[in-house]
Amino acid sequence: MLLSFRALADNYSVIFLDAYGVLKNFEGVIDGVLDVLAELKNAGKELFIVTNDASRSPKKMSLAYVHPELGELFPEDRIISSGLLARDFLRAKVRDRTVAYLGKRDSAYYIESAGLIPKPLSECAASDPIGALALLDDEGFDWQPDINRAINLLRQKTMPVVVANADKVYPVHGNAVAVAVGGLADLIESILDKRFVRFGKPDAYMFAYSFSRASALVPGLRRKDILMVGDTLDTDIRGGNKFGIDTALMLSGNTQRDNYQLAIDASGVIPDFICESIAT
Amino acid sequence: MLLSFRALADNYSVIFLDAYGVLKNFEGVIDGVLDVLAELKNAGKELFIVTNDASRSPKKMSLAYVHPELGELFPEDRIISSGLLARDFLRAKVRDRTVAYLGKRDSAYYIESAGLIPKPLSECAASDPIGALALLDDEGFDWQPDINRAINLLRQKTMPVVVANADKVYPVHGNAVAVAVGGLADLIESILDKRFVRFGKPDAYMFAYSFSRASALVPGLRRKDILMVGDTLDTDIRGGNKFGIDTALMLSGNTQRDNYQLAIDASGVIPDFICESIAT
Amino acid sequence: MLLSFRALADNYSVIFLDAYGVLKNFEGVIDGVLDVLAELKNAGKELFIVTNDASRSPKKMSLAYVHPELGELFPEDRIISSGLLARDFLRAKVRDRTVAYLGKRDSAYYIESAGLIPKPLSECAASDPIGALALLDDEGFDWQPDINRAINLLRQKTMPVVVANADKVYPVHGNAVAVAVGGLADLIESILDKRFVRFGKPDAYMFAYSFSRASALVPGLRRKDILMVGDTLDTDIRGGNKFGIDTALMLSGNTQRDNYQLAIDASGVIPDFICESIAT
Amino acid sequence: MLLSFRALADNYSVIFLDAYGVLKNFEGVIDGVLDVLAELKNAGKELFIVTNDASRSPKKMSLAYVHPELGELFPEDRIISSGLLARDFLRAKVRDRTVAYLGKRDSAYYIESAGLIPKPLSECAASDPIGALALLDDEGFDWQPDINRAINLLRQKTMPVVVANADKVYPVHGNAVAVAVGGLADLIESILDKRFVRFGKPDAYMFAYSFSRASALVPGLRRKDILMVGDTLDTDIRGGNKFGIDTALMLSGNTQRDNYQLAIDASGVIPDFICESIAT
Repeated sequence: MLLSFRALADNYSVIFLDAYGVLKNFEGVIDGVLDVLAELKNAGKELFIVTNDASRSPKKMSLAYVHPELGELFPEDRIISSGLLARDFLRAKVRDRTVAYLGKRDSAYYIESAGLIPKPLSECAASDPIGALALLDDEGFDWQPDINRAINLLRQKTMPVVVANADKVYPVHGNAVAVAVGGLADLIESILDKRFVRFGKPDAYMFAYSFSRASALVPGLRRKDILMVGDTLDTDIRGGNKFGIDTALMLSGNTQRDNYQLAIDASGVIPDFICESIAT
Repeated sequence: MLLSFRALADNYSVIFLDAYGVLKNFEGVIDGVLDVLAELKNAGKELFIVTNDASRSPKKMSLAYVHPELGELFPEDRIISSGLLARDFLRAKVRDRTVAYLGKRDSAYYIESAGLIPKPLSECAASDPIGALALLDDEGFDWQPDINRAINLLRQKTMPVVVANADKVYPVHGNAVAVAVGGLADLIESILDKRFVRFGKPDAYMFAYSFSRASALVPGLRRKDILMVGDTLDTDIRGGNKFGIDTALMLSGNTQRDNYQLAIDASGVIPDFICESIAT
Repeated sequence: MLLSFRALADNYSVIFLDAYGVLKNFEGVIDGVLDVLAELKNAGKELFIVTNDASRSPKKMSLAYVHPELGELFPEDRIISSGLLARDFLRAKVRDRTVAYLGKRDSAYYIESAGLIPKPLSECAASDPIGALALLDDEGFDWQPDINRAINLLRQKTMPVVVANADKVYPVHGNAVAVAVGGLADLIESILDKRFVRFGKPDAYMFAYSFSRASALVPGLRRKDILMVGDTLDTDIRGGNKFGIDTALMLSGNTQRDNYQLAIDASGVIPDFICESIAT
Repeated sequence: MLLSFRALADNYSVIFLDAYGVLKNFEGVIDGVLDVLAELKNAGKELFIVTNDASRSPKKMSLAYVHPELGELFPEDRIISSGLLARDFLRAKVRDRTVAYLGKRDSAYYIESAGLIPKPLSECAASDPIGALALLDDEGFDWQPDINRAINLLRQKTMPVVVANADKVYPVHGNAVAVAVGGLADLIESILDKRFVRFGKPDAYMFAYSFSRASALVPGLRRKDILMVGDTLDTDIRGGNKFGIDTALMLSGNTQRDNYQLAIDASGVIPDFICESIAT
């Protein structure tokens, strides 16, 4: 009843791939994935990673997918992170040059590449002319003081707040999960009774952006040429469906083989195709 | 402190206009608006309506804006309704040809133009091969039986559900409001614990779609060429900001002259410009 | 693994019973229930119905449970409806004598018995000195005009709003459900961004009130003398647990025999005991 | 237009007082408060503190209110903390003796006094027979690892979770606030899609409990003998109203003198009386 991913992929010229749960898990790249990707590239497929990960730059992410023969499978311009949308927003909308942030140092890439100056929130003084607050990653800061700092900063001054990763939670190892920066954003929003500017799947805009990025490399691209491949109904499949591209659910991550139908019925999110994994 | 809309508009070649609260109110087109629009067209501005109204086709909407000399100010292809996104979704994702709907007969345009067969939910039999449910408008059906029908249909069968208007509420006359179909969708979602596919402002995808529609008529269009003009912080301004275009708040509708700063601080949504109205 | 209800009941002197799903279903009183209740009464047990139904007075509800030999099994003072808490609230807090309501004529009992004058919302004129709005039942009014009327009334005037039934949904026949007045209250609250005064299970206050009512008839009553019997984890069991009384889940209504453990794990609501039904 | 608190208090024999914003602020007991309390006691009033603070035992809280002549103004049995309801719940519902907790060491009082063994969540091993999780206070643990620990514990094992303080936020100094344990509970609930057992104002059950505690010391107490005095519409006044006792809003804390009417209209929560503070 499950389809073969390789056979399915033959029907599309462009493939959008979620990273975590499809290409990687907590132990690193999933066995066999690099070979499947190489095979697809050799068959002329155009491959892109579409990810809510904004913890580091696309250039650094690309280092995780190096094939012994083909080298980097995803050059920098093939990795589409929600952080890039946050960067574009900051570039368009922030007036003062300093942007306070929560996240690891590496995640500040998305502020710097907008031509702005990132400053960890904990180092911001009351007198700093802060133009925006960016919630980039769940690590790299001390939650208790810094979440309280963010709340009080936003109670004092109205400014744009951008969340570079819409996820509430992410898998860490075994069955364990950790709160993602989107979850922390929920907490802060709920206390302030505000809604921030949040980027990433399942937002159809993330797919519109990916489509326009892919169109630049693949002239004449149409939606029906694209397959979105993901392990999470609520982000990958929901968003791909809304954007009107075909979607394939992989059972190699968040959604389990023994209850995927239950999950589909419970969420009302229907993938066009279901496969065990890309490597089987 | 408020800007002149006419002077502001000079800086842009393309203007996206919200309809209700900017061009119209409960009495019809606002005094002076047709003349301002004619003036803008004569000055070479490209004008588009960007609206969450999916109660009738763009062709029918265009009849509301006829200038004595220039004729139709917004031809069909200049009116961008959230209903068009719903239509595209239905076309891409629905397999069975019959689509049950809630809304006025006119709103079924968005199903028909997707090449599908609209059927009022109240006329659907249990044996009908319904491919999707479309929530199009708050009128044209009897709420109590039909909302309960929608809930029970979706408890029995997993299918795509599309909401063609994201608004929870709309103004009717004086200060009064009425529940919009987006509000009814909230109720049904909350009871089923599901989230539907919802189109319209403030979704940045609505702006990405409008941008691509405008680009077809205005070759070489860049985001910085566009001004989004609206009366509602939470839809027009929030969404325009997220998409990275300049935004101008008009105080002629939802947001009042005496408390707009309060509303900005409370919501955290900051327009780039503020004007009294487009006709002053 | 499931317990016998009769054996379990022996350990308690007072039994709180949910009505729908435990004593009744859409066809009326469940087969065998009247005999079990009679047996419990003969064994000296004190029986009370604890219900979110505010559609009619306790006196009218008592007519549903007449035993051929024992007569009325639940005299009026043994039926504890969330409507009684709404009545007490109205009596304590409403200054103007007229209370607008949504619901069937019978449900207005809870306004009248507070010494106030009920008036269907659709009959209220703008000039009426309305002291409060009561949401009593989902039937007896036309949803579209009257929900919009309620919203506009509350936008114009700040007044107490009481919801006499906390349920969002109730079963009607087969597997079908209908939106309860608590669901309509959610819709109105969400549009107004307000929270109303809502009475009923799972609110622990509903159990505190039932305890105090039962104490008046059973002197010296302690919490550990009481068993709460219900079919719904989220109302009967959650609320009984919070109040600190023992709880027994019956699989004769909302919670199914083949997935009750899943439902317990998903909700985190743990009944002390599980039985098939009170009549088996 | 504002009433004198002293004159108002004359009409009641029992006074329920919120602590923070009424009796204390971030600098300690508010000037003049001890004298007013002494005066009320000398006039025969029965005074109780009704608080969501579960950070330490009532005995420790009582040390904050020592009058030079009268000594302790609130003996231990006059301080009613939401922690006491959490304690009663744990005593009634927890089977295994070890209860994991988040909070300061002092807050574990509410577990110990239930006859159970408190263990900081960070010290719990996977093999520990944990009977429940108690969220007691926002301090005394490291948020990032421990919030993630709580989430993963509850994903693995279904157990009662109690939140001893319903507040999302509390004032710290100047205008600043800090996230309270109720806010952290919201975050964890949202990620797990569960609702915990939460105690404290505005829950009417907190007032029912306070009423029953006060009745033990003041025989024959009726609701109309009691005045609830608080600075927060959403907890003190909303809950007091729902329980049906008279409520008085003080403008000495959360609700400001220049916008209290706006806050009342926005929330729909109407206090029976409004005073500047208890000490003026």
